[in-house]
Amino acid sequence: MSLLELPINIPEILSPYLPLKDDLVKDKPFVTLTYAQSIDARIAAQKGERTVISHEETKTMTHYLRYHHDGILVGTGTVLADDPGLNCKWGKNCFENSPKPIIIDLKQKWKFTGSKLHQLYLNNQGKNPIVVVANEPINKEEHVEYLTIPTTNGKFDWGLLLNALKTNFNLNSIMVEGGAVVINQLLTESHLINSLIVTIGSTYLGNLGVQVSPPRKVLLENVNWWRGTTDAVMCANLKQLK
Amino acid sequence: MSLLELPINIPEILSPYLPLKDDLVKDKPFVTLTYAQSIDARIAAQKGERTVISHEETKTMTHYLRYHHDGILVGTGTVLADDPGLNCKWGKNCFENSPKPIIIDLKQKWKFTGSKLHQLYLNNQGKNPIVVVANEPINKEEHVEYLTIPTTNGKFDWGLLLNALKTNFNLNSIMVEGGAVVINQLLTESHLINSLIVTIGSTYLGNLGVQVSPPRKVLLENVNWWRGTTDAVMCANLKQLK
Repeated sequence: MSLLELPINIPEILSPYLPLKDDLVKDKPFVTLTYAQSIDARIAAQKGERTVISHEETKTMTHYLRYHHDGILVGTGTVLADDPGLNCKWGKNCFENSPKPIIIDLKQKWKFTGSKLHQLYLNNQGKNPIVVVANEPINKEEHVEYLTIPTTNGKFDWGLLLNALKTNFNLNSIMVEGGAVVINQLLTESHLINSLIVTIGSTYLGNLGVQVSPPRKVLLENVNWWRGTTDAVMCANLKQLK
Repeated sequence: MSLLELPINIPEILSPYLPLKDDLVKDKPFVTLTYAQSIDARIAAQKGERTVISHEETKTMTHYLRYHHDGILVGTGTVLADDPGLNCKWGKNCFENSPKPIIIDLKQKWKFTGSKLHQLYLNNQGKNPIVVVANEPINKEEHVEYLTIPTTNGKFDWGLLLNALKTNFNLNSIMVEGGAVVINQLLTESHLINSLIVTIGSTYLGNLGVQVSPPRKVLLENVNWWRGTTDAVMCANLKQLK
């Protein structure tokens, strides 16, 4: 399905929140946290259910954001629930413009083979993924690049992971699209996050939905809002803790 | 404390969502649901904690909304936690412009005497309240008007209450300001709600906060957004269930 036109004022609003060239010298990628939620901060009506929240025009914005990033990171819950494409349909060369998919799949629950990512890769419409695992897999899948990360009680160090993605894979900018577990963790790692772009759809998904709400207060600065047909988009930076 | 100026484009945006004259003939008041929340749909950082979420300019909007309503309804949790004024500081005559406070206090936990509402009433800066109770109080407070409502297992019929507020007290329009219990109930009573006006402040209060999220999906229509300095305001109607 083709995309709607990008709303004319979106590039100007997003511009201060996009990766910059002088971030290239740092020891971690530029990281953009971005997701779409309902008014009641739900990103899905229930666990494992792919839910349409935002207008088609903000979907175009997502592809515009993908165009501006080297990598796109999601958690295992998201790939299992949504089987997403994660490619970039904005611009002329889909393969070249598409970010490198990074799947956090510590316990190796997800299979590339047969996935939408796989299909897009075979059709030259998306890149092959990096799969982040806790242990070197015994049976490696073809066309998957693995990144093994040390874990303690199922947790890993986000700073370490981002550094490895930059150092080993030359990814200078990464957008994080979900799911809730990943976003809630990263919202409290303000020193790792460069930009936050949240689409708010005009609907309530209800309290059985999957929510984005970090374990503590998170303050924002340099806030700007975009008004769409039915959605609003908030762009901001995370206030750094002193 | 005096109010900031009302943002110049607010009246035009709010106009389609304000009470209309031809609603006067109906058997219930025009009801506006309005509250301010964080990005993560929290109206307070924790239970009983009054939390500043929105910019001062949207506080002025709240007083502008109060100016346009005959009554202002809150739950017992809100009066106990916040000791709110609920009056209208927008316009020249504070007493005349202030809506009639309606406190849902079924178990009579709240006392008017000594409250901010009481003080404002004594200073001619606000009206005396209607307190909605499950049982006729034994010790009635001076200047309080009581409305006794039938309850079953601690629940009452919102339609019945709104009808009584119109019939017995001649209130043709009511804005509901909170708290979460009241709002979550009324979001699922779409046939009773005429307008929804939600301010979204650019902050995360975190998952220990008090959330607005109804027990099921609620769809909206006729959506419009206002962009403020740091907040966005969503105006909408609740889609009626077929």
